[in-house]
Amino acid sequence: MKRVLRVALLGCGVVGTQVARLLASQAEELALRVGARIELAGIAVRRIAHSRPGIASDLLTADAIGLVTRPDVDIVVEVIGGIEPARSLLLAAMKNGKSVVTANKALLAENGAEIYGASREYGADLYYEASVAGAIPLLRPLRESLAGDTVHRVLGIVNGTTNYILDQMDSSGAGFAESLDEAQALGYAEADPTADIEGFDAAAKAAILASLAFHTPVTAADVHREGITSVTSADIASARALGRVVKLLAICERAVEAGSGRPQDGVSVRVYPAMIPRSHPLAAVGGAYNAVFVEASSAGQLMFYGAGAGGMPTASAVLGDIVAVARNRLAGTRGPDASTYAGLPVMPMGEARTRYHVSLDVDDRPGVLAPIAEAYARRGVSIQVVRQTSRGDEAQLMIVTHIARDAALSATIRDLEALPGVRAVASVMRVEGEEE
Amino acid sequence: MKRVLRVALLGCGVVGTQVARLLASQAEELALRVGARIELAGIAVRRIAHSRPGIASDLLTADAIGLVTRPDVDIVVEVIGGIEPARSLLLAAMKNGKSVVTANKALLAENGAEIYGASREYGADLYYEASVAGAIPLLRPLRESLAGDTVHRVLGIVNGTTNYILDQMDSSGAGFAESLDEAQALGYAEADPTADIEGFDAAAKAAILASLAFHTPVTAADVHREGITSVTSADIASARALGRVVKLLAICERAVEAGSGRPQDGVSVRVYPAMIPRSHPLAAVGGAYNAVFVEASSAGQLMFYGAGAGGMPTASAVLGDIVAVARNRLAGTRGPDASTYAGLPVMPMGEARTRYHVSLDVDDRPGVLAPIAEAYARRGVSIQVVRQTSRGDEAQLMIVTHIARDAALSATIRDLEALPGVRAVASVMRVEGEEE
Repeated sequence: MKRVLRVALLGCGVVGTQVARLLASQAEELALRVGARIELAGIAVRRIAHSRPGIASDLLTADAIGLVTRPDVDIVVEVIGGIEPARSLLLAAMKNGKSVVTANKALLAENGAEIYGASREYGADLYYEASVAGAIPLLRPLRESLAGDTVHRVLGIVNGTTNYILDQMDSSGAGFAESLDEAQALGYAEADPTADIEGFDAAAKAAILASLAFHTPVTAADVHREGITSVTSADIASARALGRVVKLLAICERAVEAGSGRPQDGVSVRVYPAMIPRSHPLAAVGGAYNAVFVEASSAGQLMFYGAGAGGMPTASAVLGDIVAVARNRLAGTRGPDASTYAGLPVMPMGEARTRYHVSLDVDDRPGVLAPIAEAYARRGVSIQVVRQTSRGDEAQLMIVTHIARDAALSATIRDLEALPGVRAVASVMRVEGEEE
Repeated sequence: MKRVLRVALLGCGVVGTQVARLLASQAEELALRVGARIELAGIAVRRIAHSRPGIASDLLTADAIGLVTRPDVDIVVEVIGGIEPARSLLLAAMKNGKSVVTANKALLAENGAEIYGASREYGADLYYEASVAGAIPLLRPLRESLAGDTVHRVLGIVNGTTNYILDQMDSSGAGFAESLDEAQALGYAEADPTADIEGFDAAAKAAILASLAFHTPVTAADVHREGITSVTSADIASARALGRVVKLLAICERAVEAGSGRPQDGVSVRVYPAMIPRSHPLAAVGGAYNAVFVEASSAGQLMFYGAGAGGMPTASAVLGDIVAVARNRLAGTRGPDASTYAGLPVMPMGEARTRYHVSLDVDDRPGVLAPIAEAYARRGVSIQVVRQTSRGDEAQLMIVTHIARDAALSATIRDLEALPGVRAVASVMRVEGEEE
C-alpha cells in the first residue's frame, strides 16, 4: 500500500490558504484517519511573487498544467473558481489518473456533463461537496444517504450574501441599494456583487442539487433565475404585515400532476425571492448562514444548516473530500458517479406550480373588488386571502392565491395592470413553504 | 461483475416491513443507482405463521442463522434490535463474508468494540446510519464529510418520545405522568417506556455519536445518564419564566481546559434534561422530531434536523446503507472503518463543565441571600443571575450560575439544602446552549 498521497492545490486565495494550512496542521490526524500521509506537492498560483504568510514559497508554481500532470501527484484540489483555466486543468488531471476535489459550482453547473463524463471515462474520483453550501454536508447525504429514497423537493437558502442583504432590509427597513452598500462595507458582498444579487450563484447551486436529487442532468441554463435587485422595502413591509419574510430561495421540485399530486416526468428548478411564513424553519436562518430542506418519500422532511461560505467552512468540506478520495485511492476504488439515468425534462417556469402574493393600489370605492376577483377567476386561479386597507380615496389590496400554474399567475398580473380601478401593482412576489 | 445482490432481512416489524416493501417497489430505481439488481433472499422472523400483508410468505423463515450463512446471500440487514440474537447473527454474517447493515443502537453502544472488530477482522462492511436519529443523515457526515475537521461538540435531541412528552408538559402545563399517559395513548411511547424516559435510548445514541466524533471507543456504560422522570411542572414553569425550555439532550464534548479553552485529553458524554434558551434552534424542535448540532473547528456550527424514528424514515436510512454496501461490494471494496485511534479517556460527570439553574423556596427576610451567595462562592462557582420573587413570608429565588465543574455545582446544592434560611430546593436543572 502506498503510504504517502500527494496533493496538488490549484489556487491559493481564501479557501486555498486554509486548505494548505489544514493539510499541514492536521497532518498526523489525517494520516491516522486515511491510513497514509497526505502531503502538499505544490500550489499553482498566478503570481508567485505575491506574499502568502504561512505558505512555504518553494511549493508555489505558476505552471498549473505541469503541476496537475506531475507523476508524483495523486490528488488535485481545485479552488480557483470560474470556467477557465479550471476546466482544462481538471480534465487534464482526470486524464492523467488523478483524483479530483473541487469547490467550483460554476464549472459543474455549466460544464457538468463534460466534467462528470471525464470522471467516468478515466475512472477518476470527482468530489465536490464544497461547491454547494460550504461546510454543510449536503451533496454526500443526497448522493449516498438518500440513495435508497425518492426526493420530491429541495428548498433552500444557498447564498449568504443575499440572505444578509434581505435580513438587513427586514430588520432595518432600509432599501436594497443601501443594504447592499452595507454588505459590501462589511465584506459580505463582493465589489462586483452581480453573481450573488442576480441569483447566478444560487442558480449554479440549484443545478447541482437538482442533478443529484433527481438523477437528471441539469445545467445553470436550465434554471429559472430571478435575483433580489428589484425587491423593494414595500415588498418587505407587505411580507411583514402578513407574518412572512422574504428569502432568496433555490427550489428543485419533481413535477406533480395538478389535483392528484402524482409525480410527473419533469423537474422544475428555479431561484427567486419569495415570501415564507415567519414560523418556517428557513425564516430563522439569518445573516450569511445557509439552510436546505430536503423532502423525500420515506425520510420525510430533513433540514441541513450551517455556514454556507467562508474560507474555513469551505476548507472543511474540501478536506472531507480529500480524505474520501484518499481512502478510495488506497482501496483501489472510486466513489459513486453522479447518476443521470432518470434524464427527466426540465420544465419551463410557466409550468411550475406556485402561489402569488400581490399588493395593489386601487380606487377606494364600492365595486372595485369584483373585476379584480374576476381577473383571477378567468385564469383559473383561486384566491386564498384578500385584505383591504383604506387610505383616503385610495385603498390597498393584498391578495394571496392558492397554488396555480406560474403562467396563469403571471398572466393574471398583466390583466390586473390593465384594469381601470387598479392604480398600480405595488408588489408581486411568490409565496413558498406553506401548507398546500 | 455480479449483476444481482441478495439481501437477508432479519426482523419484520415496523422497520423491516418497510424495508421489504421498498426493496420491491423501488427495485428498478435501485438497480439503476447501484448497477445491479438487489433482491430479497429471505426474511428471518420468530413466528412464521403471523400474517404480514404485502410480504410474500415464501420469503419467511424461522432459521435466522441458516439465512445469514446462505452462500447466495450478499448483504445482511438487521432490524431486530436488542443484543441477542442480533449480536450472534451479525458476527456470523461478517464471518461468512456478508456486508452488514444494522439499525441496532443498543448492540453498537454495548458491544461496539466486538462488532467493529469483527468488521475489521473479516473485512466486512458495517453500516449503521439508521441506529441514530432515523432518517437524518448524521453518521455518514460525521464519519466522512467531517473527516478532515476536528469536532468539538455534538449536542442534540435524539429521542422523539421524551421530546414529545416534554413538549406536552411545556404547552399544556401537565405533569410528567399525565403527559406520558397521553404519549402512550397516541403511540409515541411504548407500553414499557423505560428505554426512552430513563434516557437509555439517548445514551446509546450518544455513545455512537461520541465514538465517531472523537475517534474514540465509547460505550453506553461510559455515558452519564439522567432520564426525564423527575422533571416536574415546576421545572418547566421555572424554565418558561426565564425564557427557556426543557429538552432531553445528548451531549458529547471534547474536554477543554478551564480558562484557556484548550482541548484536553478527554471527552465528556452525557444525557440529561436541561434548559436551553427559547431562541436556540433546538428549542423549536417539536414533537417526535430529532435535531443534532455539531460544532467543528473549521466547519463551525452545523445542524441536522428530521424525523428521528418511525418505520418509513428508518427504512430510508437502511436503504441508503444497502445502496452503499452494494456499491462497495460491486467495486470489491469496503467503506471506512469507525476509527478509534484517538482512544481518549471518558471523563467522569463531576469533571464536566456545565451550568446549573436552581430554584429555592427561602424565608422572605433581609439577610437570607448572603449565606446562599456565600455557599456558591465557597465552591468556586460564579453566579450569573439571581431573581427573587416574594410570596408573603416566603420568597422564591432563581439562581443561574456561570460555567463550572459539575462536581462543584452539585456540592453547592447539598450545601444549600443544609442552610437554615432555605426551606426547599424546588428545582435543579442544568443549563445548556448559551454563550459561554
